[in-house]
Amino acid sequence: MAKEQGVTPQSQDFSEWYIDVIQKAELVDYGPVRGTMVMRPYGYALWENLQRELDRMIKETGHENAYFPLFIPMSFLQKEAEHVEGFAPELAVVTHAGGEELEEPLAVRPTSETVIGYMWSKWISSWRDLPVLMNQWANVVRWEKRPRPFLRTTEFLWQEGHTAHATREEAEEETRRMLGVYAQLARDYAAIPVWEGMKTEKEKFAGAVYTTTIEAMMRDGKALQAGTSHFLGQNFARAFEITFQDQDLEEKYVWTTSWGLSTRMIGAIIMAHGDDQGLILPPRLAPIQVVVVPIYRKNTREVVLEAARELVREIRAAGVRVHLDDRDQYSPGYKFNEWELKGVPLRIEIGPRDVEAGHAVLKSRLGGEKEFIGLRDLPGLLPERLEGFHRALYERALAFREAGVRRVDDYDAFKAQVERGFAAAFHCGEAVCEKAIQEETKATTRLIPFDFPEEEGVCVRCGRPSAYGKRVLFAKAY
Amino acid sequence: MAKEQGVTPQSQDFSEWYIDVIQKAELVDYGPVRGTMVMRPYGYALWENLQRELDRMIKETGHENAYFPLFIPMSFLQKEAEHVEGFAPELAVVTHAGGEELEEPLAVRPTSETVIGYMWSKWISSWRDLPVLMNQWANVVRWEKRPRPFLRTTEFLWQEGHTAHATREEAEEETRRMLGVYAQLARDYAAIPVWEGMKTEKEKFAGAVYTTTIEAMMRDGKALQAGTSHFLGQNFARAFEITFQDQDLEEKYVWTTSWGLSTRMIGAIIMAHGDDQGLILPPRLAPIQVVVVPIYRKNTREVVLEAARELVREIRAAGVRVHLDDRDQYSPGYKFNEWELKGVPLRIEIGPRDVEAGHAVLKSRLGGEKEFIGLRDLPGLLPERLEGFHRALYERALAFREAGVRRVDDYDAFKAQVERGFAAAFHCGEAVCEKAIQEETKATTRLIPFDFPEEEGVCVRCGRPSAYGKRVLFAKAY
Repeated sequence: MAKEQGVTPQSQDFSEWYIDVIQKAELVDYGPVRGTMVMRPYGYALWENLQRELDRMIKETGHENAYFPLFIPMSFLQKEAEHVEGFAPELAVVTHAGGEELEEPLAVRPTSETVIGYMWSKWISSWRDLPVLMNQWANVVRWEKRPRPFLRTTEFLWQEGHTAHATREEAEEETRRMLGVYAQLARDYAAIPVWEGMKTEKEKFAGAVYTTTIEAMMRDGKALQAGTSHFLGQNFARAFEITFQDQDLEEKYVWTTSWGLSTRMIGAIIMAHGDDQGLILPPRLAPIQVVVVPIYRKNTREVVLEAARELVREIRAAGVRVHLDDRDQYSPGYKFNEWELKGVPLRIEIGPRDVEAGHAVLKSRLGGEKEFIGLRDLPGLLPERLEGFHRALYERALAFREAGVRRVDDYDAFKAQVERGFAAAFHCGEAVCEKAIQEETKATTRLIPFDFPEEEGVCVRCGRPSAYGKRVLFAKAY
Repeated sequence: MAKEQGVTPQSQDFSEWYIDVIQKAELVDYGPVRGTMVMRPYGYALWENLQRELDRMIKETGHENAYFPLFIPMSFLQKEAEHVEGFAPELAVVTHAGGEELEEPLAVRPTSETVIGYMWSKWISSWRDLPVLMNQWANVVRWEKRPRPFLRTTEFLWQEGHTAHATREEAEEETRRMLGVYAQLARDYAAIPVWEGMKTEKEKFAGAVYTTTIEAMMRDGKALQAGTSHFLGQNFARAFEITFQDQDLEEKYVWTTSWGLSTRMIGAIIMAHGDDQGLILPPRLAPIQVVVVPIYRKNTREVVLEAARELVREIRAAGVRVHLDDRDQYSPGYKFNEWELKGVPLRIEIGPRDVEAGHAVLKSRLGGEKEFIGLRDLPGLLPERLEGFHRALYERALAFREAGVRRVDDYDAFKAQVERGFAAAFHCGEAVCEKAIQEETKATTRLIPFDFPEEEGVCVRCGRPSAYGKRVLFAKAY
């Protein structure tokens, strides 16, 4: 492998591996302002594919896209007490514009509950206006102390859904429905198994009644929160006077939800699947699903390239995202390494003898033997091979996750377990105890999974009775 | 017509008409910060449709999407002298973030040449890296003194294309190619005829060698610049040291272009087509192409709604964006007015006697008789009717435009002409004279159209020889 293509092995330093792979695979680069990132075309294409699928799901569940302003008056953020407390330390503030100092400083949106609440108070007046089901694709800014591309960046891209309902039940249902959409996106498109569940009071969104979350396990055993859906109760409705006249003619506050999924999900894809050779991309989201690498010398160049081009046309006609790497200046070996680094699921090699024999070589990024497949059959075969790749990738991640989680009932075992993966343990529910665990082990409560069985026990750290009627998942987290 | 549905007639006050129609049709609302706008779902859906078509065209011409940071160090903007002079008065500036004052204030991007130039200087090193063909969809901020929704807002959405080339010729070709894409979008999707041509030196983009533009005529005779494509020469390459080693082994500066089209285009669609009843939307971009309004009383409700639902299913299956307005609380007449206001191209009415007779009524937003069409034939007929609507809308706008432009050779006739439309006149090319015309008539040079014939003459204002070898189009402009 050419030296510039190499990445630090995961076992040696997972963080270094991550930084190597995102830069060398040309997903991102660092922007000039600390904590900002540039999404390069290969990384952005991955985001576009994810965005297309999620946008479709959001619309299929009845939501409409809209766009609200980037700048929010500082006074808006202060209207919901918990909200401002949570976000104030991370705000970027515009104080000057158009050559003058502004009368009121403007926050660059860290999230849009406040400005949307303000608009809704103008738009919503009757039960006939409800539910309001909106979504926006936008950039948001949160000043991060320890930035890391995709995971914590000063500016990131996301979608934020915001809905208003006439009843509590409806809003709670919506909260769960959209968490389900995120879980489906993770499983069916990113090939990542996720737990769905509740955040503890300490870990919830600033301003929510409660937060639900999907959490995934990365290949270093750490957790990544990949999407959250919040039940906001009437907190923002009260702060922004969002009321409606109900069918019983009474004036009532609406019930609201919000839910967001961001470019963090790309970080999850990288760390849930990648290996020492680089990325492994889930085929349904991969910008390039199949790469064709022709193998030739000067005298066989034309024959091989002609066959490769014909093959690529047919593969494209089969609905597969295919790329022909016909660069003369690199050797086939160099190209193999580069496309492995970039995580392309399937590779096709074709040389002069293959052309003569009427076949090509198929190789999977997940390993296994090279296969010789007839050129006529190959294009039609690829869609099912890609589906098989998706399933194998998901199963691999699931097996890894299952091996990485353990039920633990004493604190020493707990400490050992969060060094390598997730610990399923009882907890007393006290914020002080939760904080002590974090200080002593660096692990935090990730979630109280919906599908964990009801079970009684005592807190793994302090021995008081369990607060949640089931175990909680703890892990170190990104 | 219900009072709240009415809009100020265009002839009475075109500006008031515009403000009425964008709000009442629920395209936009004003944001809480002066000069910002909220794009409501109906307005945003129009933008999404436009975005989808333009994004496809941008990709078909070989460009890749990427995403660059919102925040740009102030020092970057100062590296290109004309650029900073042009944009400094409009900047919004972040001075505080994360609870601290920043060492260097950050500009919220007004456009991204500088930050992209900075990144390119890191990424481009060889002729093999060229051309670089990138695009980004983003929000930008320019502090506007006289904001108006879609036309001039403090924050707006756009795409900005940025390309780097090895030769001047290639960059100039690219500049023209992308202007052609904008013209095609305007004609083939927005149904708006546009002139393509050069901006004068005075009107060009700050930092460009020259700017090309598409200009359209609004229904009050004023001009709207709907998209611009800039040849930047080596100005930004020199400012950001973007060099490459060419095949002859020499280190050279790249040649760059940039081109942008924004939510302004929606303003163009509104003002190029709308009438006293409200919007008229071009079918290829309309969020709703066909609305079905069932007409029933209590005892016929079920029969009519069932037939209407079946019809809507079949229309949808024919690939048409259709909406069923089954709201009980509004009368058919109210609904007709509302969908006319919202500019839906075709309306279908269906009542109990229509159901019995097996037909429905089709009505075009462009006027003409109501037609009775058999329910079986109707769905299959709609796609061609929508295409016909598109052509008729374009022809209508073209005829209006042709009636609104005149060749004028004396200054009095010029002054009269720019009160009602466009004036095609000779100009000396002197910035001082150009500015005087603006002060005396409020008209500006819109463009020097590519397809105007070569012609000699003397300046319509000062009598000096013409500078451009052809006439220039002048108009008052948005």
